[in-house]
Amino acid sequence: MQQVAINGYGTIGKRVADAVRQQPDMEVLGVAKTRPNFEAETAIEKGFSLYAAVEDRADQFGEAGLEIAGPVEDLVEAADVVVDATPSGIGARNKELYEEYETPALYQGGEDADVADVSFNARSNFENATDADHVRVVSCNTTGLSRVIAPLQEAYGVEKVRATLVRRGGDPGQTDRGPINDILPDPVTVPSHHGPDVETIFPDLDIDTLGMKVPATLMHMHSLNVTLEEEVDPSDVRELFADESRLFLIPERMNIDGSGKLKEYALDAGRPRGDLWENCIWEKSVSTVGTDLYLFQGIHQESDVVPENIDAIRAVTGAADAEESIETTNETLGIGL
Amino acid sequence: MQQVAINGYGTIGKRVADAVRQQPDMEVLGVAKTRPNFEAETAIEKGFSLYAAVEDRADQFGEAGLEIAGPVEDLVEAADVVVDATPSGIGARNKELYEEYETPALYQGGEDADVADVSFNARSNFENATDADHVRVVSCNTTGLSRVIAPLQEAYGVEKVRATLVRRGGDPGQTDRGPINDILPDPVTVPSHHGPDVETIFPDLDIDTLGMKVPATLMHMHSLNVTLEEEVDPSDVRELFADESRLFLIPERMNIDGSGKLKEYALDAGRPRGDLWENCIWEKSVSTVGTDLYLFQGIHQESDVVPENIDAIRAVTGAADAEESIETTNETLGIGL
Repeated sequence: MQQVAINGYGTIGKRVADAVRQQPDMEVLGVAKTRPNFEAETAIEKGFSLYAAVEDRADQFGEAGLEIAGPVEDLVEAADVVVDATPSGIGARNKELYEEYETPALYQGGEDADVADVSFNARSNFENATDADHVRVVSCNTTGLSRVIAPLQEAYGVEKVRATLVRRGGDPGQTDRGPINDILPDPVTVPSHHGPDVETIFPDLDIDTLGMKVPATLMHMHSLNVTLEEEVDPSDVRELFADESRLFLIPERMNIDGSGKLKEYALDAGRPRGDLWENCIWEKSVSTVGTDLYLFQGIHQESDVVPENIDAIRAVTGAADAEESIETTNETLGIGL
Repeated sequence: MQQVAINGYGTIGKRVADAVRQQPDMEVLGVAKTRPNFEAETAIEKGFSLYAAVEDRADQFGEAGLEIAGPVEDLVEAADVVVDATPSGIGARNKELYEEYETPALYQGGEDADVADVSFNARSNFENATDADHVRVVSCNTTGLSRVIAPLQEAYGVEKVRATLVRRGGDPGQTDRGPINDILPDPVTVPSHHGPDVETIFPDLDIDTLGMKVPATLMHMHSLNVTLEEEVDPSDVRELFADESRLFLIPERMNIDGSGKLKEYALDAGRPRGDLWENCIWEKSVSTVGTDLYLFQGIHQESDVVPENIDAIRAVTGAADAEESIETTNETLGIGL
């Protein structure tokens, strides 16, 4: 039974904690947080041991009536692996701590690639992370792109990828984000960082990406163009995608027109927090013009990396190979709409 | 002095009326409207003769205290040219009326291309409309794409265009439109109608477009990729664009990050209604990767076709050639930021 520490209990951390708890081969040793809030209270209610991530703020938990199991150092020392789910940039600062206690660590995609020995996507390069000490689970957008590119590359070969990422301005809970009533090129420079980030998974890939930000909070939307090495019928591409467990092909009959109905469908289906762990590809949008493939996909920024974190835990601990791990993760979480 | 009738006095019609009034070689004979509202009141205040577009609703104007000059038929009969600025689909139904009185007519881009003998963009194919009886001024998005494609094609040759159009859900006054907090593939099928529409201007162009709708009202935003027939330095493309009177290259020093600041700049500059007649291209976004050119451009859906309508009036009446007309239009309106 792998003992997993989760450092950072926000959007990603709390989801990873719940997902770890559902696995047959790992358990949550504890979660660390910098300050008390509704998430800390829920962690306690769920029975997770709560650790103080910042020593001189530890008192705040007591004042809020929340019992602390100890400082984050104790948690890291005792764990077999730590999932760092702290905000962008903090993960890199925590690396020293993980090295001090020789605890293998996973970082999130907000960190620079050089924080880790390997950037990770379960479908694309699970093996690269086997027994690595520092692994970066790539961002929600890079995860979404990688899951589509991997099967296309294997089946047809990819000449070039061009993607426009229309990104939600902030998550539903991020009340300090924008824009209101605007469409922002973001970054205004081309290419955006997303293309180079995908190249941490596919080093030889030719990919250009453009990013925007819009007044929406539910999901990102990708307008994707992949120039394939051969002409392919769209129905073949749909069949190829249908075989991928983490690609959800939205059937036309469902009358799902955007992120709102997708989330509502996930909630109706009883999914925790209405999470959509899969890429949500509009089946009707999968089209080809010569060797050019086009599609729209919705990416749930809060949750698509959660199963990837679980698989990365198994990779660094050497607990399973890719196929075995992905199957266990999918089955326990209920992935596959 | 060309006598211009304007049928439809909404978003486009009212702007075209104001623009016609500023021309030295044409005047507004009258404007027609289906029902009284704030726009009808303003038309009267501005001294435009107001005609009733629908006979059995003419009484409503009198009841609202607005004097009607007569039925739209009288206006069409007396005019040298009519600009149809009615909602999509109504223009085609009005064609019979214009034919009956043998008045040359301009239609807007919401109509199907086959309503007219020629689809029009001043920069790209002015000459095709010379002395034509029925001319369609293409939509705001097609206008925006055409203005960029024409100089690129002339300077370098264009192998292929791929564009993602992130469209405002509705105009600021369209309170019945959506989405709220969503990003919708729209249409979800690929290609969107925009590509074929651009081909009404450039019949041999290879272009694929994808459309989306987002909760913004101010402007559309295009993520544009043009594969050129040669490798070009981005600075050369910027110089090429700088010579185009209806392309505004947003300088980095202005710190304009999106539609909101663009509109505020136009209002600060004293532009009527804060209109942005030019494509607004982020200079910093103009980038090349091999033969692939990328850029972001904002398109003001309410106004970029206004100068095109003015030029189209001169084309169908044979009053000027392209260069002469465009120069007069630009000078009188104040185009060129």
